[in-house]
Amino acid sequence: MLIQDLIKKKRLKQALTDEEINFLINGVKNDTFNDYELSALLMAITINGMDERETTTLTLEMAKSGDILDLSKIDGVKADKHSTGGISDTTTIAIVPILASLGVKMAKMSGRSLGFTGGTIDKLEAIDGFNTEITNEQFIKSVQNIGASIISQTADIAVADKKLYALRDVTETVQSIPLIASSVMSKKIASGADIILLDVKFGQGAFMKDVKQATALANLMVKIGKNAGKKMCAIISSMEQPLGRGVGCTLEIRDAVEVLNGAKNRLSQVCVAICIEILKLAFNLTEKEAKNKVDEVISSKKALQKLIEIVKNQGGNANIITDLSLLKKSKSSKVVYANKQGRVVAINGEMLGNACKLLGGGRTNKGDKILHEVGFDLNVSLNDIVKDTTPLATIYYNNEDKLQEVETMLKNAFIISKTNKKVKTKLISKIIR
Amino acid sequence: MLIQDLIKKKRLKQALTDEEINFLINGVKNDTFNDYELSALLMAITINGMDERETTTLTLEMAKSGDILDLSKIDGVKADKHSTGGISDTTTIAIVPILASLGVKMAKMSGRSLGFTGGTIDKLEAIDGFNTEITNEQFIKSVQNIGASIISQTADIAVADKKLYALRDVTETVQSIPLIASSVMSKKIASGADIILLDVKFGQGAFMKDVKQATALANLMVKIGKNAGKKMCAIISSMEQPLGRGVGCTLEIRDAVEVLNGAKNRLSQVCVAICIEILKLAFNLTEKEAKNKVDEVISSKKALQKLIEIVKNQGGNANIITDLSLLKKSKSSKVVYANKQGRVVAINGEMLGNACKLLGGGRTNKGDKILHEVGFDLNVSLNDIVKDTTPLATIYYNNEDKLQEVETMLKNAFIISKTNKKVKTKLISKIIR
Repeated sequence: MLIQDLIKKKRLKQALTDEEINFLINGVKNDTFNDYELSALLMAITINGMDERETTTLTLEMAKSGDILDLSKIDGVKADKHSTGGISDTTTIAIVPILASLGVKMAKMSGRSLGFTGGTIDKLEAIDGFNTEITNEQFIKSVQNIGASIISQTADIAVADKKLYALRDVTETVQSIPLIASSVMSKKIASGADIILLDVKFGQGAFMKDVKQATALANLMVKIGKNAGKKMCAIISSMEQPLGRGVGCTLEIRDAVEVLNGAKNRLSQVCVAICIEILKLAFNLTEKEAKNKVDEVISSKKALQKLIEIVKNQGGNANIITDLSLLKKSKSSKVVYANKQGRVVAINGEMLGNACKLLGGGRTNKGDKILHEVGFDLNVSLNDIVKDTTPLATIYYNNEDKLQEVETMLKNAFIISKTNKKVKTKLISKIIR
Repeated sequence: MLIQDLIKKKRLKQALTDEEINFLINGVKNDTFNDYELSALLMAITINGMDERETTTLTLEMAKSGDILDLSKIDGVKADKHSTGGISDTTTIAIVPILASLGVKMAKMSGRSLGFTGGTIDKLEAIDGFNTEITNEQFIKSVQNIGASIISQTADIAVADKKLYALRDVTETVQSIPLIASSVMSKKIASGADIILLDVKFGQGAFMKDVKQATALANLMVKIGKNAGKKMCAIISSMEQPLGRGVGCTLEIRDAVEVLNGAKNRLSQVCVAICIEILKLAFNLTEKEAKNKVDEVISSKKALQKLIEIVKNQGGNANIITDLSLLKKSKSSKVVYANKQGRVVAINGEMLGNACKLLGGGRTNKGDKILHEVGFDLNVSLNDIVKDTTPLATIYYNNEDKLQEVETMLKNAFIISKTNKKVKTKLISKIIR
């Protein structure tokens, strides 16, 4: 078999056999192929697509190309959650303790992030002492003992996916639904959980620009997961505006803690929806039963206690959770005003993400240090009516150098229009089971 | 400008601007891009195509990427001819002396070939002493003095095309009409002639498998040439069976000389058609006037004398042209019989080419030595009725090792069927002006 045979088939929009996909991924793992051969194949796949069977096989082969976590030593039902990524999405830090306090075992591997703001791991590291790089053994023991642990994804998960992704990133072949689906799902399957909930975002701040694209991706990932024997659910949620109030690591830790303290906002809505779906799959509950359980662990502070337990277990300063003023603070802050009148008709999430990065709250290269304490709090939401003097956001910064630029970006990110017409927006537009 | 911007545009089936194509080809020439970036772009172009304006710009930029031959020192009208390649196509060696003897200046650069049988340069080198690697200066002087010269294409012509072709060859991106057209035309434009005649082949032994594909390619190349200010014509001719009687270097020299001696066969038909079209463009003649001129230089042996002159001028043993028995001979020969009854309904040119290569009459790697004296003469044509004892071909070989295999390939190349129905075939199916 030659890689050229596979390239030709995909150029002609033909399906690859399971044997061919196995040959491909083994070759990627073992560095058998030239990058120029793989990039030609990736482009042919990006343009001509892959069917469900091909994508499932690709996913499973990529999962097998690295370590597959063995969670069998953990009793009970194990769940995992993945967000396709967006601005100010800190759901993981809230839903893990909620679900763990309800008996779902949460063995959660998360990522640091490139570009934009920090990932879940970066946010947790904003808590003094929190160790996200414990061994797999300690990780599994933690989940068994206290019901949850969140660690940084190891390099040995889905090795072939990592290599292909690096090539996709520089050859304009990221935007392919089968390739995105197999990349996400290979890592999730290798992470070993029984239940996988996907939070697929759409909107300007997200990978998928509209509900239709997001739905297509979600449908495919749910099918792949089911084909691999997993219990699956996907939520299609809006990134037409940031999910939380804060953008930046410490601010997002605060937002997550607020959810566990009973705050009602967009973030809590998504968190509750995610928890309900996972509980239904885990314990065969009705919607109402699941909802009641979630409400109960929040109002009783059991979920908050669970977060404290998780933080302590991984060496973090748990006092922070009950006294958020202990979180590291930026050197200065500045309020940005609307200087305009009208309705907020759009919020450019991509621009907000880039503004946070400019403050030092994101990274350009792997290994870049991130400033946990910088970012901004947003004071307005879509459809809010603003006056000249309405504060749009507060910037938290350490260094004045980029302040002017960040201010301009923030102002430009809010599109304000003199219209009476409300923008139609729905936080959760679909749930795919 | 980033190469990724160009890749994205072609992935989304958008047209590249002239500036972008200039950026691309300069980068290819200067080795600015990674192979994996270029192969992704080539695949996107292969699948999504390029319009006429893009293809013309690509062609001109590739022509400019290397030397452009300056034929201005040669008086009169300069013509060039290109065949997209096929089995036993030795037209160049016949048409160059015919046209030169009629006053058209033929400054012809030809190639050696990879795979299959030898190219024009290999065939000429079957003539003792014939030097195909004279300097450009000698080349131009020869054309000025005696009206024609045929030399091996220099490495400095269309440098970017050479680099891209090497990548296309290993990434399944050869089969793209805009890329084939720009590759051929960039070299032709760099070769400097005023008139370019293209012989675009279709059929099993050719690049383009059917008339439709060949016509699309020919139309595009004619348009590109005209856009570049050239006088253009394309002949669409059949490779459903080998053009000449012989397959192999010395045998094809013999076939070309036979045309100049007045032989009437498929090869002579195509040669005459090519000469007529070039004469019409060169001197504004009618079809009939042009035909009469060609007939005259053949019957008067002026064309044959011109070939002798060309051979002498480049140091070759011109006695060979008048006494073909002086051509080098293979050690042995063997006749292959039909061993079947019926009608010859198809002849697999690809298999014949591979059989010739197996005898040593073609090369696998650049620089491989070619045996000029091996090959085979074919005794039957499409639609011939054969008996068991009908000789299909005579094999000329030096080495018995591969003889058995070559015999089997030859037999398999002739599809013989018990049918009364003639196969429809037309040697020249279209002329595009």
